Amino acid sequence: MTTTRVPQEQRSRATRRRLLEATVGCLVDHGYAGTSTTLVSERAGVSRGAQLHHYPSKADLVLAAVRHVSEQRGLELREAAASLPQGAGRTRAVLGMLGDHFTSPVFAAALELWVAARSDEPLRGEVAELEQQLGRDTHRMTVELLGADESRPGERELVQATLDLVRGLGLANTIGDDSARRARVLDRWAEVLEAGVG
Amino acid sequence: MTTTRVPQEQRSRATRRRLLEATVGCLVDHGYAGTSTTLVSERAGVSRGAQLHHYPSKADLVLAAVRHVSEQRGLELREAAASLPQGAGRTRAVLGMLGDHFTSPVFAAALELWVAARSDEPLRGEVAELEQQLGRDTHRMTVELLGADESRPGERELVQATLDLVRGLGLANTIGDDSARRARVLDRWAEVLEAGVG
Repeated sequence: MTTTRVPQEQRSRATRRRLLEATVGCLVDHGYAGTSTTLVSERAGVSRGAQLHHYPSKADLVLAAVRHVSEQRGLELREAAASLPQGAGRTRAVLGMLGDHFTSPVFAAALELWVAARSDEPLRGEVAELEQQLGRDTHRMTVELLGADESRPGERELVQATLDLVRGLGLANTIGDDSARRARVLDRWAEVLEAGVG
Repeated sequence: MTTTRVPQEQRSRATRRRLLEATVGCLVDHGYAGTSTTLVSERAGVSRGAQLHHYPSKADLVLAAVRHVSEQRGLELREAAASLPQGAGRTRAVLGMLGDHFTSPVFAAALELWVAARSDEPLRGEVAELEQQLGRDTHRMTVELLGADESRPGERELVQATLDLVRGLGLANTIGDDSARRARVLDRWAEVLEAGVG
């Protein structure tokens, strides 16, 4: 039993991963409305039966996909953070990393889900829960990366403002390349953070 | 001729206004994908023929609606700005006004259009043009309201960062009431602006 169950579990995991990555690709290319379970199965090269077994509905698939890529991207950010400079230039480098994250396909996929949930009552509750969890993780990581001390007045709010700012920059980048302007805004914001954090 | 043409033009203007306001209502309640020209005609109480005459396609209707409500809201903001306090508390009051604007139904309608345009090539060009125009108007108004001097180093970028921040706060508010956290972030942001602008 054990020898056959282990490969089976590995295959299931690989199938789920293919489905989740295909879902993100679909969201990025066609938006939430243009994403269907059929399209995702085809894109993933996974049978309809296997897709329905792992994720019975479009909502299951999209929620799991955004959770999966966000968590994975979070791990990658933490790894990348290990090679950030210490001292001068660190704050700007952290902001550059966050700016890249909030203009990536992962952000576009999450944005599609967030906006679909706005006018979809049953979806909204689940997205709100996912957003809280991902928001907490990103906040904690940003506090660490910036070396912020949240017990000092105003530092927690500056970290939150930083994440609201990069979210707004992500939205500004959705219909055109906003990278030059974004770089200038983040240069200025790094000066503010260096005066007010850590 | 003149006596019959004037009422006709007034009626057309009233019809267009009803169609545009119904479109915003549809976008807010059902999202871009759930908005159709049929639904808008019904909601506006306007015949399909009249709707097609004024706005031949869904894209025409939605672009005109977002332009209309954004310009109208811009005028309202400028009027409201006349009663803002001078001196202490002004910066925070300006931020409160912007925060309210970017969490209003007008923002939700614009967000639906922006996100739909992300994965819709023909729509994207038109939305990019509209965004540039509205963005310029909002930037100019914010410079005036904050009394910023853009010839001084860093002030232009702080005004831009302010608008990116409130855009991010608007997005954070789409699936739940974020007003308590938003108030604390804007309190802190007001301190940053008071140190760096004007």
